[in-house]
Amino acid sequence: MKSGTLATLVAFASCAATTGVAFAQVKPETLVKQRQSAMTLQGKYFGPLAAMAGGKAPYDAAVVARNATYLDLLGKMAWDGFDPGTSGEKSRALPEIYKEPAKFKEAADKFQVEIGKLVVASKSGNESAAKNAIGDIGKACSACHDDFRSK
Amino acid sequence: MKSGTLATLVAFASCAATTGVAFAQVKPETLVKQRQSAMTLQGKYFGPLAAMAGGKAPYDAAVVARNATYLDLLGKMAWDGFDPGTSGEKSRALPEIYKEPAKFKEAADKFQVEIGKLVVASKSGNESAAKNAIGDIGKACSACHDDFRSK
Repeated sequence: MKSGTLATLVAFASCAATTGVAFAQVKPETLVKQRQSAMTLQGKYFGPLAAMAGGKAPYDAAVVARNATYLDLLGKMAWDGFDPGTSGEKSRALPEIYKEPAKFKEAADKFQVEIGKLVVASKSGNESAAKNAIGDIGKACSACHDDFRSK
Repeated sequence: MKSGTLATLVAFASCAATTGVAFAQVKPETLVKQRQSAMTLQGKYFGPLAAMAGGKAPYDAAVVARNATYLDLLGKMAWDGFDPGTSGEKSRALPEIYKEPAKFKEAADKFQVEIGKLVVASKSGNESAAKNAIGDIGKACSACHDDFRSK
Protein backbone atom coordinates (compact mmCIF):
# COMPACT_ATOMS: atom_id res chain seq x y z
CA MET A 1 0.00 0.00 0.00
CA LYS A 2 1.32 3.39 -0.95
CA SER A 3 1.89 5.78 1.88
CA GLY A 4 -0.44 8.25 0.21
CA THR A 5 -3.22 5.72 0.22
CA LEU A 6 -2.55 4.85 3.81
CA ALA A 7 -2.53 8.50 4.78
CA THR A 8 -5.85 8.96 3.08
CA LEU A 9 -7.33 5.94 4.75
CA VAL A 10 -6.10 7.15 8.10
CA ALA A 11 -7.58 10.55 7.30
CA PHE A 12 -10.86 8.93 6.36
CA ALA A 13 -10.84 6.85 9.50
CA SER A 14 -10.16 9.95 11.50
CA CYS A 15 -12.99 11.77 9.81
CA ALA A 16 -15.17 8.77 10.36
CA ALA A 17 -14.45 8.96 14.02
CA THR A 18 -15.38 12.58 14.07
CA THR A 19 -18.43 12.55 11.90
CA GLY A 20 -19.89 9.10 11.90
CA VAL A 21 -19.70 7.08 15.04
CA ALA A 22 -20.32 3.98 13.02
CA PHE A 23 -18.73 4.99 9.77
CA ALA A 24 -19.01 1.54 8.25
CA GLN A 25 -22.76 1.81 8.57
CA VAL A 26 -23.01 4.94 6.47
CA LYS A 27 -24.26 3.89 3.06
CA PRO A 28 -22.25 4.92 0.00
CA GLU A 29 -25.21 6.81 -1.42
CA THR A 30 -25.49 8.74 1.83
CA LEU A 31 -21.81 9.67 1.69
CA VAL A 32 -22.31 10.95 -1.85
CA LYS A 33 -25.38 12.94 -0.86
CA GLN A 34 -23.55 14.45 2.10
CA ARG A 35 -20.47 15.47 0.15
CA GLN A 36 -22.60 16.93 -2.66
CA SER A 37 -24.54 18.87 -0.05
CA ALA A 38 -21.30 20.39 1.21
CA MET A 39 -20.38 21.37 -2.34
CA THR A 40 -23.83 22.86 -2.93
CA LEU A 41 -23.51 25.05 0.14
CA GLN A 42 -19.98 26.06 -0.78
CA GLY A 43 -21.50 27.29 -4.04
CA LYS A 44 -24.29 29.09 -2.23
CA TYR A 45 -21.92 31.10 -0.10
CA PHE A 46 -19.10 31.50 -2.58
CA GLY A 47 -21.29 32.62 -5.47
CA PRO A 48 -22.05 36.11 -4.14
CA LEU A 49 -18.39 36.64 -3.33
CA ALA A 50 -17.37 35.68 -6.86
CA ALA A 51 -19.92 38.17 -8.18
CA MET A 52 -18.42 40.90 -5.99
CA ALA A 53 -14.85 40.06 -6.94
CA GLY A 54 -15.86 40.06 -10.58
CA GLY A 55 -17.51 43.46 -10.35
CA LYS A 56 -20.98 42.07 -10.99
CA ALA A 57 -22.28 42.98 -7.58
CA PRO A 58 -21.41 45.77 -5.15
CA TYR A 59 -18.90 44.82 -2.49
CA ASP A 60 -20.56 44.08 0.83
CA ALA A 61 -18.01 43.64 3.60
CA ALA A 62 -20.51 42.12 6.01
CA VAL A 63 -21.58 39.46 3.53
CA VAL A 64 -17.97 38.69 2.68
CA ALA A 65 -17.04 38.28 6.33
CA ARG A 66 -20.07 36.15 7.09
CA ASN A 67 -19.70 33.92 4.04
CA ALA A 68 -15.96 33.52 4.66
CA THR A 69 -16.75 32.15 8.10
CA TYR A 70 -19.31 29.78 6.63
CA LEU A 71 -16.94 28.63 3.90
CA ASP A 72 -14.20 28.02 6.43
CA LEU A 73 -16.31 25.24 7.94
CA LEU A 74 -18.08 24.11 4.78
CA GLY A 75 -14.67 23.63 3.20
CA LYS A 76 -14.00 20.85 5.70
CA MET A 77 -17.22 18.92 5.26
CA ALA A 78 -16.96 17.22 1.88
CA TRP A 79 -13.77 15.19 1.93
CA ASP A 80 -14.63 12.30 4.22
CA GLY A 81 -17.46 11.55 1.81
CA PHE A 82 -14.97 10.57 -0.89
CA ASP A 83 -14.60 7.03 0.37
CA PRO A 84 -13.48 4.42 -2.17
CA GLY A 85 -16.69 2.57 -1.34
CA THR A 86 -18.60 5.30 -3.13
CA SER A 87 -16.83 4.79 -6.46
CA GLY A 88 -19.76 2.79 -7.81
CA GLU A 89 -22.27 5.54 -7.06
CA LYS A 90 -23.50 7.92 -9.73
CA SER A 91 -21.66 11.19 -9.41
CA ARG A 92 -19.19 13.38 -11.28
CA ALA A 93 -16.31 12.24 -9.08
CA LEU A 94 -13.51 10.80 -11.21
CA PRO A 95 -11.56 7.62 -10.36
CA GLU A 96 -8.44 9.79 -10.03
CA ILE A 97 -9.68 10.75 -6.58
CA TYR A 98 -8.92 7.24 -5.37
CA LYS A 99 -5.95 6.64 -7.65
CA GLU A 100 -4.16 9.78 -6.52
CA PRO A 101 -5.37 10.39 -2.98
CA ALA A 102 -2.35 12.48 -2.02
CA LYS A 103 -2.92 14.81 -4.99
CA PHE A 104 -6.61 15.01 -4.17
CA LYS A 105 -5.86 15.88 -0.56
CA GLU A 106 -3.39 18.50 -1.71
CA ALA A 107 -6.10 20.13 -3.83
CA ALA A 108 -8.54 20.08 -0.93
CA ASP A 109 -5.93 21.54 1.41
CA LYS A 110 -5.18 24.28 -1.10
CA PHE A 111 -8.85 25.23 -1.14
CA GLN A 112 -8.90 25.45 2.65
CA VAL A 113 -5.74 27.56 2.74
CA GLU A 114 -7.23 30.05 0.29
CA ILE A 115 -10.40 30.27 2.35
CA GLY A 116 -8.26 30.99 5.39
CA LYS A 117 -6.70 33.93 3.57
CA LEU A 118 -10.17 35.30 2.84
CA VAL A 119 -11.16 34.95 6.49
CA VAL A 120 -8.14 37.00 7.51
CA ALA A 121 -8.67 39.62 4.79
CA SER A 122 -12.36 39.98 5.52
CA LYS A 123 -11.76 40.39 9.24
CA SER A 124 -9.23 43.13 8.61
CA GLY A 125 -11.59 44.91 6.24
CA ASN A 126 -9.06 44.81 3.42
CA GLU A 127 -11.30 44.80 0.35
CA SER A 128 -8.49 44.43 -2.16
CA ALA A 129 -6.96 41.48 -0.31
CA ALA A 130 -10.39 39.93 0.10
CA LYS A 131 -11.08 40.15 -3.63
CA ASN A 132 -7.73 38.60 -4.40
CA ALA A 133 -8.46 35.80 -1.95
CA ILE A 134 -11.87 35.23 -3.55
CA GLY A 135 -10.16 34.90 -6.92
CA ASP A 136 -7.69 32.41 -5.47
CA ILE A 137 -10.49 30.36 -3.96
CA GLY A 138 -12.13 30.25 -7.37
CA LYS A 139 -8.89 29.03 -8.90
CA ALA A 140 -8.62 26.32 -6.24
CA CYS A 141 -12.19 25.23 -7.03
CA SER A 142 -11.44 25.08 -10.73
CA ALA A 143 -8.12 23.29 -10.36
CA CYS A 144 -9.69 20.51 -8.32
CA HIS A 145 -12.72 20.25 -10.58
CA ASP A 146 -10.49 20.11 -13.65
CA ASP A 147 -8.56 17.15 -12.25
CA PHE A 148 -11.13 15.26 -10.26
CA ARG A 149 -14.61 16.02 -11.60
CA SER A 150 -16.04 14.94 -14.93
CA LYS A 151 -17.10 17.66 -17.34
CA MET B 1 -7.35 34.33 -15.15
CA LYS B 2 -7.80 30.90 -16.67
CA SER B 3 -10.98 30.39 -18.59
CA GLY B 4 -11.75 27.52 -16.26
CA THR B 5 -11.57 29.87 -13.35
CA LEU B 6 -13.82 32.36 -15.03
CA ALA B 7 -16.28 29.62 -15.87
CA THR B 8 -16.27 28.58 -12.25
CA LEU B 9 -16.83 32.10 -11.04
CA VAL B 10 -19.68 32.56 -13.47
CA ALA B 11 -21.16 29.22 -12.53
CA PHE B 12 -20.97 30.05 -8.86
CA ALA B 13 -22.33 33.51 -9.45
CA SER B 14 -25.27 32.07 -11.32
CA CYS B 15 -26.28 29.93 -8.39
CA ALA B 16 -25.39 32.69 -6.04
CA ALA B 17 -27.13 33.79 -3.34
CA THR B 18 -29.58 33.81 -0.89
CA THR B 19 -27.39 36.24 0.84
CA GLY B 20 -29.05 39.35 -0.38
CA VAL B 21 -26.75 40.04 -3.28
CA ALA B 22 -28.90 38.80 -6.09
CA PHE B 23 -31.67 36.90 -4.41
CA ALA B 24 -34.21 37.35 -7.19
CA GLN B 25 -31.93 35.56 -9.62
CA VAL B 26 -31.79 32.32 -7.63
CA LYS B 27 -34.05 29.72 -9.17
CA PRO B 28 -36.63 28.06 -6.94
CA GLU B 29 -35.15 24.62 -7.58
CA THR B 30 -31.76 25.93 -6.51
CA LEU B 31 -33.20 27.29 -3.29
CA VAL B 32 -34.75 23.90 -2.57
CA LYS B 33 -31.50 22.10 -3.31
CA GLN B 34 -29.57 24.46 -1.06
CA ARG B 35 -31.94 24.20 1.87
CA GLN B 36 -32.07 20.42 1.55
CA SER B 37 -28.28 20.38 1.51
CA ALA B 38 -28.23 22.26 4.79
CA MET B 39 -30.65 19.72 6.28
CA THR B 40 -28.56 16.83 4.98
CA LEU B 41 -25.45 18.19 6.67
CA GLN B 42 -27.34 18.90 9.87
CA GLY B 43 -28.19 15.21 9.83
CA LYS B 44 -24.62 14.21 9.13
CA TYR B 45 -23.30 16.03 12.15
CA PHE B 46 -26.23 15.55 14.48
CA GLY B 47 -26.61 11.82 13.89
CA PRO B 48 -23.48 10.76 15.80
CA LEU B 49 -24.45 13.02 18.69
CA ALA B 50 -27.91 11.51 18.89
CA ALA B 51 -26.29 8.08 18.99
CA MET B 52 -24.10 9.16 21.90
CA ALA B 53 -26.93 10.75 23.82
CA GLY B 54 -29.00 7.63 23.26
CA GLY B 55 -26.26 5.37 24.58
CA LYS B 56 -25.74 3.71 21.22
CA ALA B 57 -22.21 5.02 20.85
CA PRO B 58 -19.50 5.95 23.35
CA TYR B 59 -19.40 9.60 24.29
CA ASP B 60 -16.64 11.46 22.51
CA ALA B 61 -16.24 14.99 23.84
CA ALA B 62 -14.07 16.12 20.93
CA VAL B 63 -16.64 15.00 18.37
CA VAL B 64 -19.43 16.64 20.30
CA ALA B 65 -17.57 19.93 20.52
CA ARG B 66 -16.64 19.91 16.86
CA ASN B 67 -20.06 18.90 15.59
CA ALA B 68 -21.72 21.46 17.85
CA THR B 69 -19.64 24.16 16.19
CA TYR B 70 -20.60 22.86 12.76
CA LEU B 71 -24.28 22.66 13.67
CA ASP B 72 -24.22 26.18 15.05
CA LEU B 73 -23.54 27.45 11.51
CA LEU B 74 -25.44 24.78 9.59
CA GLY B 75 -28.48 25.63 11.68
CA LYS B 76 -28.53 29.05 10.05
CA MET B 77 -28.23 27.96 6.44
CA ALA B 78 -31.58 26.45 5.52
CA TRP B 79 -34.18 29.09 6.28
CA ASP B 80 -33.63 31.63 3.53
CA GLY B 81 -34.30 28.79 1.11
CA PHE B 82 -37.91 28.60 2.22
CA ASP B 83 -39.04 31.33 -0.11
CA PRO B 84 -42.73 31.32 -1.11
CA GLY B 85 -41.53 31.10 -4.71
CA THR B 86 -40.41 27.54 -4.01
CA SER B 87 -43.86 26.33 -3.02
CA GLY B 88 -44.40 24.76 -6.43
CA GLU B 89 -41.21 22.71 -6.24
CA LYS B 90 -41.22 19.06 -5.28
CA SER B 91 -40.20 18.71 -1.66
CA ARG B 92 -41.59 17.65 1.69
CA ALA B 93 -42.10 21.25 2.78
CA LEU B 94 -45.71 21.85 3.78
CA PRO B 95 -47.75 24.94 2.82
CA GLU B 96 -47.96 25.78 6.53
CA ILE B 97 -44.43 27.17 6.23
CA TYR B 98 -45.78 30.05 4.17
CA LYS B 99 -49.16 30.25 5.87
CA GLU B 100 -47.66 30.55 9.33
CA PRO B 101 -44.26 32.18 8.83
CA ALA B 102 -44.04 33.46 12.39
CA LYS B 103 -44.62 29.97 13.77
CA PHE B 104 -42.09 28.54 11.33
CA LYS B 105 -39.51 31.12 12.36
CA GLU B 106 -40.19 30.37 15.99
CA ALA B 107 -39.48 26.69 15.37
CA ALA B 108 -36.26 27.51 13.53
CA ASP B 109 -35.18 29.87 16.29
CA LYS B 110 -35.89 27.22 18.90
CA PHE B 111 -33.59 24.83 17.04
CA GLN B 112 -30.81 27.44 17.02
CA VAL B 113 -31.23 28.17 20.71
CA GLU B 114 -30.91 24.49 21.58
CA ILE B 115 -27.78 24.21 19.46
CA GLY B 116 -26.37 27.18 21.35
CA LYS B 117 -26.88 25.33 24.62
CA LEU B 118 -24.95 22.37 23.22
CA VAL B 119 -22.10 24.65 22.15
CA VAL B 120 -21.86 26.01 25.67
CA ALA B 121 -22.12 22.60 27.31
CA SER B 122 -19.57 21.00 24.99
CA LYS B 123 -17.08 23.80 25.57
CA SER B 124 -17.38 23.41 29.32
CA GLY B 125 -16.92 19.67 29.08
CA ASN B 126 -20.21 19.02 30.85
CA GLU B 127 -21.23 15.65 29.42
CA SER B 128 -24.56 15.49 31.18
CA ALA B 129 -25.56 18.97 30.04
CA ALA B 130 -24.36 18.19 26.53
CA LYS B 131 -26.47 15.04 26.36
CA ASN B 132 -29.50 16.96 27.57
CA ALA B 133 -28.87 19.62 24.94
CA ILE B 134 -28.57 16.95 22.25
CA GLY B 135 -31.91 15.58 23.34
CA ASP B 136 -33.45 19.03 23.19
CA ILE B 137 -32.06 19.61 19.71
CA GLY B 138 -33.65 16.35 18.63
CA LYS B 139 -36.97 17.49 20.04
CA ALA B 140 -36.68 20.78 18.17
CA CYS B 141 -36.01 18.88 14.94
CA SER B 142 -39.01 16.66 15.48
CA ALA B 143 -41.35 19.46 16.49
CA CYS B 144 -40.61 21.41 13.31
CA HIS B 145 -40.79 18.33 11.11
CA ASP B 146 -44.12 17.38 12.66
CA ASP B 147 -45.63 20.74 11.83
CA PHE B 148 -43.93 21.71 8.61
CA ARG B 149 -42.76 18.57 6.79
CA SER B 150 -44.92 15.95 5.15
CA LYS B 151 -44.66 12.40 6.46
